[in-house]
Amino acid sequence: MAVEENRPVAADPSVLEELQGIRRSIDNIDAALVHLLAERFKFTQQVGRLKAVYGLPPADPQREVEQIQRLRALAEDSHLDPAFAEKFLTFVIAEVIHHHERLAGEVVDEPQETWPDGASDVTAAAPDASPPDIS
Amino acid sequence: MAVEENRPVAADPSVLEELQGIRRSIDNIDAALVHLLAERFKFTQQVGRLKAVYGLPPADPQREVEQIQRLRALAEDSHLDPAFAEKFLTFVIAEVIHHHERLAGEVVDEPQETWPDGASDVTAAAPDASPPDIS
Repeated sequence: MAVEENRPVAADPSVLEELQGIRRSIDNIDAALVHLLAERFKFTQQVGRLKAVYGLPPADPQREVEQIQRLRALAEDSHLDPAFAEKFLTFVIAEVIHHHERLAGEVVDEPQETWPDGASDVTAAAPDASPPDIS
Repeated sequence: MAVEENRPVAADPSVLEELQGIRRSIDNIDAALVHLLAERFKFTQQVGRLKAVYGLPPADPQREVEQIQRLRALAEDSHLDPAFAEKFLTFVIAEVIHHHERLAGEVVDEPQETWPDGASDVTAAAPDASPPDIS
């Protein structure tokens, strides 16, 4: 069917219905993504607390390398751009660091409890997430 | 338990075991996130094709506003920072635009098929995702 200059021909209800259906799927996926991200941050906070209590180092470069390799492979399998998967991890880790910075700011009287990080449980993008940098 | 200067006390196998368990959960969530993102991009590509074929406008500001409001509400319900949920949408839309730019570059002989966008099905962060900007 010829299309003239992207001029709307939205009068066809079946087309709009199809569009609505796809959008509902996108909305469902977005809801799932938000809830999974919420759960992920709960786990990284657990890691942060564990590392604080037992004095484990905040970063684990080997773990980070493995995470990136694994995510890139999963992305390829699902036909997602591996570079995007890695960027996504970097994006999430930035929020993890932000969380821990806020946490550190809230409980300055109890530095042990505010120890990071869980950052290394996300990606290698946080090599500077050592305690002195949390402010 | 007192902790001395975050010095590793990783000799305790039960602690490392607990850490490993949490990390496995994080890995499972990351795999789910990657697969959901892959599926989401398939849907936004469907939207892009549909809009191209039927000459629907690439952007839908009202839809975008609703998406942001909905995602922020879902984030609050799941104790995720609403501002992060909105940033996440912005991050994803940037990739959607990137996808369509590549698509446009691959099929320059068939401009109708390369019409964006599905961008408006993600967030309001892509007001400039009009066809002339795709290059």
